[in-house]
Amino acid sequence: MRITTPTLLVDEKKCRANIQMMADRAARHDLVLRPHFKTHQSHEIGRWFRDYGVTKITCSSLSMAEYFAEDGWADITVAFPVNVLEIDTINRLASRLTLNLLVESTEAVWILKKGLNHSVNLLIKLDLGTHRTGVDPENLEAIQKIIDTISESSQTAFLGFLSHAGHSYKCRSREEILAVHEEAMERLAKLKGEFPEACFSYGDSPTCSHAEEFGMVDEIRPGNFAFYDLMQVQIGSCYYDQVSVAMACPVVAIHPERNEVVVYGGGVHFSKDRMEIDGRVVYGQAVESEGEGWGNPIDGVMLDRISQEHGVIKGTSEWVASVKIGDIVKVLPVHSCMTMDLLRSFKKV
Amino acid sequence: MRITTPTLLVDEKKCRANIQMMADRAARHDLVLRPHFKTHQSHEIGRWFRDYGVTKITCSSLSMAEYFAEDGWADITVAFPVNVLEIDTINRLASRLTLNLLVESTEAVWILKKGLNHSVNLLIKLDLGTHRTGVDPENLEAIQKIIDTISESSQTAFLGFLSHAGHSYKCRSREEILAVHEEAMERLAKLKGEFPEACFSYGDSPTCSHAEEFGMVDEIRPGNFAFYDLMQVQIGSCYYDQVSVAMACPVVAIHPERNEVVVYGGGVHFSKDRMEIDGRVVYGQAVESEGEGWGNPIDGVMLDRISQEHGVIKGTSEWVASVKIGDIVKVLPVHSCMTMDLLRSFKKV
Repeated sequence: MRITTPTLLVDEKKCRANIQMMADRAARHDLVLRPHFKTHQSHEIGRWFRDYGVTKITCSSLSMAEYFAEDGWADITVAFPVNVLEIDTINRLASRLTLNLLVESTEAVWILKKGLNHSVNLLIKLDLGTHRTGVDPENLEAIQKIIDTISESSQTAFLGFLSHAGHSYKCRSREEILAVHEEAMERLAKLKGEFPEACFSYGDSPTCSHAEEFGMVDEIRPGNFAFYDLMQVQIGSCYYDQVSVAMACPVVAIHPERNEVVVYGGGVHFSKDRMEIDGRVVYGQAVESEGEGWGNPIDGVMLDRISQEHGVIKGTSEWVASVKIGDIVKVLPVHSCMTMDLLRSFKKV
Repeated sequence: MRITTPTLLVDEKKCRANIQMMADRAARHDLVLRPHFKTHQSHEIGRWFRDYGVTKITCSSLSMAEYFAEDGWADITVAFPVNVLEIDTINRLASRLTLNLLVESTEAVWILKKGLNHSVNLLIKLDLGTHRTGVDPENLEAIQKIIDTISESSQTAFLGFLSHAGHSYKCRSREEILAVHEEAMERLAKLKGEFPEACFSYGDSPTCSHAEEFGMVDEIRPGNFAFYDLMQVQIGSCYYDQVSVAMACPVVAIHPERNEVVVYGGGVHFSKDRMEIDGRVVYGQAVESEGEGWGNPIDGVMLDRISQEHGVIKGTSEWVASVKIGDIVKVLPVHSCMTMDLLRSFKKV
C-alpha cells in the first residue's frame, strides 16, 4: 500500500532484535520478562513476543488487559493503581485469567474486597523516588497494614512488590541510568530482607536496557524498549539505529524563505510530547529515507512545531531544497508509546 | 451510565449557548458561519449546529471531511494545505459535494489538476503573521501566479482567500485579541482592493469571540468556541463558565504528604498540551462537581503532571483531605480539541 496519510512505520527486524536483546538479558539473570504492552497496544506485535518465550504481560489499564485477553494472554499485571470503579471489568477478567492488580493503600483493598467475586493477586506499589505513586519502601508499618488487609480475604492474595524507577527518565547517560538502578536495588534489597517470600517486579526501559545486576528482582517489566524513540536515545537507553518506529508524513507545503517544510503529521499523530536537543525544543527528528524503511537521523532537521494536524519541520536550506510537495518525510517520534496510542495501526517495513 | 473510566463531559446547554452566540455574531455582520468541526469530530454535536442555521463546515483533514459527508454535510472546506497524495479521497468527495481545498503554491495546483476527475474550489491560504503556512498577502505576484494556474483548468475554480490569525493564541486579553484582529483586517482590506470578487474566509476562536468589525470578510471559521477550554480562558476569548467540556477522572491514589491526588486520566486522555498559570506549568484545573455537571474552578487545584494513563493533581491540603479513592474529580482541559480527538466519545450533562 502506498502511503498517503501519516503512517507509523514499524521496522520488524529492529523491533524483534530489541525484544531478543531483552529476552536474552532476562534469561541471563533468571528473570521473568513481563513486558509492558502499553507501548504497542497491538495483538500482532504482542504475538512477536511469544516467539521469545514471553507468556506474562503488563498493561496500564483494565481495558488494555481485556484487549490482550482476547488474544489469549492469560497472566496480566495491570501496573496502575487499581481503579476500584471498574469492578465489573476486574471480575470479568479475574474469572478467566491470572489478574495481578496494584494497590498502595488499605482503602483500595477494602473497596476491592467488597466487590470481588473472583480471586486476584495484589502487588503493593513502591515509590523508589519518582514520587508519582506508591508507598515508601522504608515505611514498613504501612506496608504491613496493607498486607494484613489483603490477607484477611480469600479473594485477594498478596503477590509481592512492584516498582518502577521512573526517575531514570531524567538520566542522560548509561552511567546515570546505572546509578539510579544501583540505588533502586539497594532499597529493594532491604525490603527483601523483611519480606523474603514476596515477588519483586521491577523495571523501566532505561535501567533494563543496561543493568546486569538484578539482585533480588524476580521479574522485569520494560515496555518502551521494543520501539525505543528519540527520548530513549537522549536518556542513553539505546542508539538511533535501535529505534524501530518512524512516522511517515506527507509534505504539503514548503517555505524555503524560513527553511521550513510543512507536513501532514501533527499533535493528533505524534502527541505533544517534546524534548530539548541542542537547546531547541523539538517534537521529532527527520531521518534519511531508505526504501520502505529509514536510515540515519538528519543533522539539524527537526520537527519544530506542531498543531492539531500540521507539523513544521525546520531544516537546513540544502535539505529543504531537496524536498517536493507530495514527498514522504520520515520522522523519529519523541515518545513512541504516545504516538502508537494515537495511530493504533502501523505499516511493517 | 455511571462513570468508571476517564470520560469527557459535554454540557449541552453551555455548548449550544456558545454556538448561538457565534451564530448571532455572524448574522449581525452578514457573515457565513462555517464552523471548524475538528473541535468535536462528532456527528451528534455537528447536528446541534444545524439548529442555528449552519450548512457549511470546515474540517482539518480529508478523512474528517468524509466522516461529516456521511452525515449529510454537503459544503466542506478542508482548511489544511491540500495533501495531493490523497487524490482518490479528493475525487470521491468532489463527486458528491462542494469541496473547497487550500493551496499555497502553483506546484500543488499542478499536481492536483493532473489527478482530478471532478471539480473542486480552491482557496489560497494567506499568512497573516502566524508563519505556519500560507502566502504573504502582500506578495501579489505569487498570488496572481497561483490564480492563473487555477484558472487554466476547468476542474479547479478560484474561490478566494483563507486566513487564520493563529497568532491570536499568543494574546492574553480581549484588547490584545482585538489588536491582532484589527491588523488582520487592514491586511485583508488591501488584498480585497486587488481582488474584489474573491471570497474572504477568516477566523479563529479568539478574534471571532470578540470582534464586531469584519470589513470585507465573507465567512468566519472558528472551531474551539463551541467547547472553549482553559487556554481560551487565558487568552481572553471566554470566561470559565463558558467552557462546555470537562474530563471526569476516577481517583486511584491519594498522597496527603505532598498534597497530591492521582487520577486515572493522563496523556492519552488530556493530550500533553500544557500552559502556565501563576508561573506553574499545568495540564488542567479541577472544578467543583455539581450533580452530573460542574461549577467553578477550584483555586490552586491543578493537574500538575501527566504520564500515559496517570494524572497527578496537586491541590490544597483541604481539598486533598476531601477526596476519597473511587471519587470522580472533574478537570477542565487545557486544549479541548486535542482532548476530544483522544476520547472520541462524550457524555452529555
